Parts: sequence; structure tokens; C-alpha cells
Amino acid sequence: MTQSRVLTGITATGIPHLGNYAGAIRPAIEASQASDTESFLFMADYHALIKCHEPAVVQQSARAIAATWLACGLNPEQVTFYRQSSIPEILELSWILTTITAKGLMNRAHAYKAAVQANVEDEAADPDKGVEMGLFAYPILMTADILMFNGQKIPVGKDQIQHIEMARDIAQRFNYLYGETFQQPEAVVDESSMIIPGLDGRKMSKSYGNTIPLFEDEKKFRKLINKVKTNSLEPGEPKDPKGCTLFSIYSAFTDEAAQQEMRQRYADGIGWGDLKKYLFEFLNEELKDKREEYNRLMADPAELDRQLAKGAEKARAHATPFLQEIKKKVGISPMA
Amino acid sequence: MTQSRVLTGITATGIPHLGNYAGAIRPAIEASQASDTESFLFMADYHALIKCHEPAVVQQSARAIAATWLACGLNPEQVTFYRQSSIPEILELSWILTTITAKGLMNRAHAYKAAVQANVEDEAADPDKGVEMGLFAYPILMTADILMFNGQKIPVGKDQIQHIEMARDIAQRFNYLYGETFQQPEAVVDESSMIIPGLDGRKMSKSYGNTIPLFEDEKKFRKLINKVKTNSLEPGEPKDPKGCTLFSIYSAFTDEAAQQEMRQRYADGIGWGDLKKYLFEFLNEELKDKREEYNRLMADPAELDRQLAKGAEKARAHATPFLQEIKKKVGISPMA
Repeated sequence: MTQSRVLTGITATGIPHLGNYAGAIRPAIEASQASDTESFLFMADYHALIKCHEPAVVQQSARAIAATWLACGLNPEQVTFYRQSSIPEILELSWILTTITAKGLMNRAHAYKAAVQANVEDEAADPDKGVEMGLFAYPILMTADILMFNGQKIPVGKDQIQHIEMARDIAQRFNYLYGETFQQPEAVVDESSMIIPGLDGRKMSKSYGNTIPLFEDEKKFRKLINKVKTNSLEPGEPKDPKGCTLFSIYSAFTDEAAQQEMRQRYADGIGWGDLKKYLFEFLNEELKDKREEYNRLMADPAELDRQLAKGAEKARAHATPFLQEIKKKVGISPMA
Repeated sequence: MTQSRVLTGITATGIPHLGNYAGAIRPAIEASQASDTESFLFMADYHALIKCHEPAVVQQSARAIAATWLACGLNPEQVTFYRQSSIPEILELSWILTTITAKGLMNRAHAYKAAVQANVEDEAADPDKGVEMGLFAYPILMTADILMFNGQKIPVGKDQIQHIEMARDIAQRFNYLYGETFQQPEAVVDESSMIIPGLDGRKMSKSYGNTIPLFEDEKKFRKLINKVKTNSLEPGEPKDPKGCTLFSIYSAFTDEAAQQEMRQRYADGIGWGDLKKYLFEFLNEELKDKREEYNRLMADPAELDRQLAKGAEKARAHATPFLQEIKKKVGISPMA
């Protein structure tokens, strides 16, 4: 059976929340268990430096993210799970690709254009005000992340499709200049991907400050669930699950039958307080074993290092000879 | 005694010619012998990819350059002599610096501005036409080359002074964000540095196609010396050494006393044919042992690999722990 190679990068800033879990972590772990799939999952810590110049945050996020993925059931024997920064070959490849990438391609990247647009709207003297080279050049590093492992399927959000197109362009140019080397990666956009609302009803996102951390301690977790915004309907009054944040969160963790049952309880006029209590208990049950494992791993950073080192070793078993081959193709190799 | 650390990059495209020897190779080797100097000398092969997408040229140049420097007396025991591409730490550092470098700084780099200016003059639709990211981002890689070894004195031509200023800016910003880490490198511009004219009397340069290769075989070497442009004065007529290409080349290899004697011969009306014969014999005598050693090394690429591998090992003994320290400062380090 031919396996297809799926490569997923995890941004290494921030502490994982319920939205990350339902929208990204759980589906990626499920997908990694498919036997026709070879999964590469990496923490993009060199990307994190673009957005974050606070070492403690970068460091703490990486730890929380590694612990979260492992606690959620990622099997490091089955998946190649590594830190980007443990694979120096990626950075070498990134430079090699830099030398064949048109600057015009980067000029057209959405994230860069948005930053320039914001400066223009602010009537800044320099449209590049505050723009760092990391933001400008990051599609090249992302291309190296993918091409280093010849990733075929790249699960991304819609905002990332352009980057995969750029990776295809760059791969093609390399192949044209130096001979067939890289496969063309393909963006896989999961249209059905779960978007969970946050405390205020908007999409749960760190940037809105409306998140419910995945592995908050029980007390705080209960408090946060109680803080989810609802309307002012009284107990006994029938309620509409559509557009209700509590129902959306519940749905992300249940199947159709359970959701149907819950719709009935809305129609029957369940009170918001009771519903929140129920939701808390349900989620707490769902997450408590994982949380325990998370806490255990957070208290044992050496174990995280061990797991990630094993992943890096597997990744480099591929990257080291492949980079040698690539370097030879561009004219950089031992002389004998 | 405090040693100052001198770091010199050698562009790894093209075959060394007489001008390179007199203007760069010989003075760098002499400087490396000073006891108050610790010299880092590297072949900038990752820079070569910016200008050259022909693998055979990149590869052959690196070989010729390594053989030339060693044949000219570079002592690899005394100097740290390595290929840039053998130090992956440089590429990692280059990315780290990318994340803290303002795009505006790169917008102002001379080489990039010249490329844009040429497009504007050609009325190109896109001022970035033909500009690759390698050209745009290369001052960052050059900064990483320097800061990786905390190079203090960087011998450069005038056109490179701006890049050293950029390296200082970037070093300063890193120190500001993450704490004192890098020394401020200093450009050392040798105003007296020898510029040798080529066959046509203009500066000897690959781009003018007027070079005399340093280690051409004897026959071809004689032919090239005979091709040097002179005026039409006959033997017996007094000649002016000023502005004479033959005299300039001779001067680059002799001391004041020998030059004075030669001036007398010009005044006495030496014929161009005799002079060319004399210059050939003189240079041939000067270079023949080195040429023999060059040919020996070119025929023994494994020996070049060994010498460069030793240099890379010395360089990495510094780069590996220093990069670890740098990564820790930005928040990327083992978790335990």
C-alpha cells in the first residue's frame, strides 16, 4: 500500500485551548492513526520567533504544546514528532531556496501585504514600518519545512493556501534549475473543520482573549465554563441551540445522537446554570485523564526532551542524506 | 597579549587571478601570520549560490580557491580555514537574526537598490524584476557569518562597509532584546590595497574578462603576458612607467628598489617585447613553486576535503556551543 506523507506544523506560541483541540489537535491525531498515512508533526519554534521576542513565552509554549499533543494521544512511535529547531538541515535548505526565490513572490504574500496595508492606512512614512524580515521571508522557511521531508499533503487553514502555492512554485523552480528533486506539495483544507466559539461567542482565539485553556485546573475550568455568554432566557423557557456557544462546544465533543438528545433538552427549557454544570461535568470527564497525563508531562520536562529527541532522530534520518543530495545538486559537496 | 579576531570571507565563484592574489590573498595570508591576530578565513559557498545557479561552476571554483589559498602559503594549523556550508550553525543563526531585522534595513542595501535602479531605468513593469531573495537577504547571512564567531575586524572593500554597519545594527538589536551577546564588528578598509590592471588596462576583474589566472600553465601564462596592452613606442624610445599595465603588475610583486631599477630601464628605452619576456620570467619564477603545489592539490581533492574538514571542526568547536547559548537566549532550548 502506498502511504501518503502528511506534514503538519504547530505554531509554538500560546497555550492550547479547547478550540485548538477540537479544530486541530484531535483531527490531526486521528488522521495520524490511518494506516495509509505517514505523519510528520513538528513544533514550528523557529516560526514562533517571528511573532514573539519573549524567550520565556516561546519556551513555555513549546513545553505546553509538546505535553498537550502527547497527552492527547499522539503516538510518537507511529508519528515523526519533532521540534523544527532540532533539524538544522531545514535552515540550510531554507537558505538554498532563498537563492532561487523571486522577491516578487514574497511581495505578494498576504501577511506581508496586510502589514503594508495597515501602515498605508495609518499614513506611516514608511509602508514597511515595523515589518521584520521574518514576516517577509517566512513563506520560504515554511517551504523548506515541507520540502525537506517531501511532504505531500499539508493540512492548512484557508489563509495558508497561498503559502502552499508558493511552496509549489519554489519546488518547481528548483526542479527546473537543478533536476527533479522535490514533489509538489498539496494543500488539504478541511472545510468541515470545527470552529469553536469562545467565551464571548466569537471564534475561540488567543487574539480575542476569549479562550478556554484545554488543561486548566478543574476549578478554573468550571469558572470559565460558567462565564460563557448566553442570553437571558429563564429556566423553563424553550431555547434555541442554533448560535448557542454552549451547544457548539458540546457538539465539538459529541456525536449526532448525543446532540439530538441535547436539542431536546434545549426545547424542554433547560436552565443555563444546569446546562453549564452539565457541560462542565461532561468536558471534565472527557479531559481529566488527558489533563492528568498533561500535568505529569509538564512536571517531567526531561521526558518531553526524550520524546522530541527520538522524533528528531527519525526526522534527521531522512533530512541529513536528503540535504546532502540537494547540496550536491547545487554544487556544494565534498571535493573528492 | 590580547588577540584580535579577523574574519574574512572569500567569494566562491571564479578562478583566482593575479589581481586577487596581490590585492587579497597575499595580504590576508601575511596578516594571518601576525601573532596578535586570530584569523578565520572561509569560503562563502552559500553566498556563491546567490550569483551562480551552475553547480559545476560553484563546485570547481571552491576547489580552485581552496587549492589556491593553501598553495599560497595559508597555514591551516594557524588559521581557521573552512567552508561556510560546513557550519550549519551559521544558517540557524541567520534565521534567528532574520526574525529581528527590519525589512527597511534591507530595502536600503546598495546592491538591492542598484538592481531596482537598473529596472527603473529599463522601465520594467516591476522594479523587483529578476531580483531574488538571496540578493535581498544576503546582508543577514553575512551578519551571521561574522557574529557566529564574534569577528572583530572584517577586512572589506569600500562597497562592503555598509554591510558591516548593518551587522553592527543587527548585533545591537539582538543585544538589546536578549542581553549582551555579540561584539560590534568593525570594518577594516585597506586604502593601500593593491589594484592590478588587467590585459586591457582596466582593473583586473572577472566581470571585465581581462584577467590573468594566477596558476595558468606556463605556456598560456606567457601568452597572456604577451597580450597585455601597451602603446606603440619602439625599442630605444624612453617610456613612462606611470599608467603602464606591465609596470603596475611588476610593482605588485616587487619592492621599491626593484621598481626604481625598472623605472631606469623604462627611461633607457627597453622594448615592450623584452619587457614582457622579463616580466613573464620574473612572475613565473615567483609563482612556479606555488603553481606546482596548486596542481598537486587540484589533483588531490581528498586532501582539500581533509584540510577543510579540520578547519570546520575548529570552527564548530566555537559555533556549536555559542549557538546553543544564543538559542537559549531566544527561548529555544531543551525543556529540562
